Amino acid sequence: MPKTYLTRRERFSSAHRLFQQELSDTENAQIYGQCSHPNWHGHNYELFVTVKGDVNPEIGFTLNLKTLSNIIKTYIIDKVDHKNLNLDVPFLKGKIPTTENLSIAIWDELAPHIKELGAELYKIKVQETENNFIEYFGEL
Amino acid sequence: MPKTYLTRRERFSSAHRLFQQELSDTENAQIYGQCSHPNWHGHNYELFVTVKGDVNPEIGFTLNLKTLSNIIKTYIIDKVDHKNLNLDVPFLKGKIPTTENLSIAIWDELAPHIKELGAELYKIKVQETENNFIEYFGEL
Amino acid sequence: MPKTYLTRRERFSSAHRLFQQELSDTENAQIYGQCSHPNWHGHNYELFVTVKGDVNPEIGFTLNLKTLSNIIKTYIIDKVDHKNLNLDVPFLKGKIPTTENLSIAIWDELAPHIKELGAELYKIKVQETENNFIEYFGEL
Amino acid sequence: MPKTYLTRRERFSSAHRLFQQELSDTENAQIYGQCSHPNWHGHNYELFVTVKGDVNPEIGFTLNLKTLSNIIKTYIIDKVDHKNLNLDVPFLKGKIPTTENLSIAIWDELAPHIKELGAELYKIKVQETENNFIEYFGEL
Amino acid sequence: MPKTYLTRRERFSSAHRLFQQELSDTENAQIYGQCSHPNWHGHNYELFVTVKGDVNPEIGFTLNLKTLSNIIKTYIIDKVDHKNLNLDVPFLKGKIPTTENLSIAIWDELAPHIKELGAELYKIKVQETENNFIEYFGEL
Amino acid sequence: MPKTYLTRRERFSSAHRLFQQELSDTENAQIYGQCSHPNWHGHNYELFVTVKGDVNPEIGFTLNLKTLSNIIKTYIIDKVDHKNLNLDVPFLKGKIPTTENLSIAIWDELAPHIKELGAELYKIKVQETENNFIEYFGEL
Repeated sequence: MPKTYLTRRERFSSAHRLFQQELSDTENAQIYGQCSHPNWHGHNYELFVTVKGDVNPEIGFTLNLKTLSNIIKTYIIDKVDHKNLNLDVPFLKGKIPTTENLSIAIWDELAPHIKELGAELYKIKVQETENNFIEYFGEL
Repeated sequence: MPKTYLTRRERFSSAHRLFQQELSDTENAQIYGQCSHPNWHGHNYELFVTVKGDVNPEIGFTLNLKTLSNIIKTYIIDKVDHKNLNLDVPFLKGKIPTTENLSIAIWDELAPHIKELGAELYKIKVQETENNFIEYFGEL
Repeated sequence: MPKTYLTRRERFSSAHRLFQQELSDTENAQIYGQCSHPNWHGHNYELFVTVKGDVNPEIGFTLNLKTLSNIIKTYIIDKVDHKNLNLDVPFLKGKIPTTENLSIAIWDELAPHIKELGAELYKIKVQETENNFIEYFGEL
Repeated sequence: MPKTYLTRRERFSSAHRLFQQELSDTENAQIYGQCSHPNWHGHNYELFVTVKGDVNPEIGFTLNLKTLSNIIKTYIIDKVDHKNLNLDVPFLKGKIPTTENLSIAIWDELAPHIKELGAELYKIKVQETENNFIEYFGEL
Repeated sequence: MPKTYLTRRERFSSAHRLFQQELSDTENAQIYGQCSHPNWHGHNYELFVTVKGDVNPEIGFTLNLKTLSNIIKTYIIDKVDHKNLNLDVPFLKGKIPTTENLSIAIWDELAPHIKELGAELYKIKVQETENNFIEYFGEL
Repeated sequence: MPKTYLTRRERFSSAHRLFQQELSDTENAQIYGQCSHPNWHGHNYELFVTVKGDVNPEIGFTLNLKTLSNIIKTYIIDKVDHKNLNLDVPFLKGKIPTTENLSIAIWDELAPHIKELGAELYKIKVQETENNFIEYFGEL
């Protein structure tokens, strides 16, 4: 059975701030630049979820796209869209909301739900601006 | 002398919240939906500034693009990028930072500086997400 | 009161065929080329609806974006998305579904609903492929 | 000799319908949703063909881009563009034209022709809408 | 009869240099910055040609898209694509190839051919990079 | 420690010509087509640099994006932007500036600087037009 990689894009708009609580504003600015601005800033994030799986020979799908979209919306988009990534998101509690940490946390949230569907989470890609993005493949 | 319209795009990433101070959170949510979320959210904004002018026959420019870009950066981008549109921006003080109000305020900031250069501000376009944008031509 | 132009993008995927019933396949091919292929073909259309209006000074909106989006979905997207533009769409009955006719018909459907909201439909833009689009301003 | 991956994008616009002949319309709708609409619908597809190969040290190419483009046009685009994927395409006969099956069938058509040129087909990516795409690497 | 605006996009890749022959390299650099680099540089240009016309009630077109595309290719693209805008293009002879002058010259080349087809050239838009473009409406 | 892949996009606009000095213009045209035009042509290139690394658990970054951007600007963009790839670029001397050779040369320039920062260069992607790009992973 051929294996394909299905990617679904979803979008969310959030506020965040990059900083370490134990550092001063000046120290945070040295590490995080403008991204440590105390009154927050925000982005239109694009999330690409890639799932690997056998193509079901009868149906012709790796996974039902609607099912995949619903899972991403329930477990991720509803929790981050029009929210503050530092203050409002249970699965980011205690983490600095860099695109790296965001990608890893989204992987950890989604992987078990994809597995339940008989497929395998392959990649999380989070695009923060048109000039930078992070990819995570679950590598430790 | 032929007249052309020169457009420069600049980008900024900001946090904001849409709400009226005199209304309750419930009332604000009825009007502004998710955009009134109290802990802020944010966007990657795209700003398109269009200037109308005669093409200088010797130089071949409507306006020097570098000059235009510098004016936009000095008077707009430096004040809104990686900032909170409700709290940090002098020219938005007391205004609800909708894309409409943002476009009008940017027009008011830029128009005199474009005029000084012998050209005419023609349009401000602000794109908030890939699905919605506002255009303002200075019409009252 | 400043007037702004608010644009909302919605998308739909449809099948269509360009042909005149009274002409032969050869004649239709001479006029419409590949687009007259008898077994249909299709596109991902992008619809941009632009509404002109005063910015409500209290709220800061030309029109509520959610309301506008709902109107477009109810009167247009639900009727054309994942449909056949020749066979399934009441407001296209008896019309050749060129991008021109599609834009005009969408204008005619939406204009009264936008008017009811106290604003004015300004432009319908329909993008058929990345290389061609039609704009209609209600001009006769 | 360094190995590079050359990708060529080509586009096509097609009609299709997702359904299993032995199922009722209601059953097909449960599996394929709107995509099983009996009167067809369609998309602007983007096809990305990635070829892996040594860079010819004299010429500086992995493969001549024009040659690659011609092969894709002859064996794929000419057969699917402005066509019905269910009815018109020999290499899709008897297959449900999901993006998965489309990607696999395109791989099977192109792989031998790429091989004849001394290179290796590495990936087929088919983008159906801006929100979903399939990648296939020939994995079984 | 409704009037619509039909836009066709074509692309070309060219080299150019912005400079005035009677000025020194230093003086040119002061006016044109990097764009006056003596050994040339280049761009992927996007050209958008917008034609205004009545929609033919029998055919449903403003103008046949294929005809429009062929005119643009014959009179513009074939002369500028993979060429040097300073050295190779008859209709730019003696002009500094700024995006402004390029837009005006393309207007002058295309307008009579569009008129012969019974339509009206409405706008030339030339996009030089993702951050800047010129629009020309034939205004003097 | 989780490993992520960080990608930074930078852009440059350059002139180039594809040809072998020892061949005639006719022979070069047979191999390189329009790209061998003697008076040069040019492109807006997009460069995507992907770096693989552990996410620093305190800071939350694979690598500081600003640092990465500065390295790309210093060692690549400043040397190729608004330049002639055949005549002006030290690291391309003696090479035919195909997208393949450009990608490999950029890899060779950047790899040691990324290593000094404790990370690993994973991929260079150079997009020449919207229809073709090269990826290089340092494979020999």
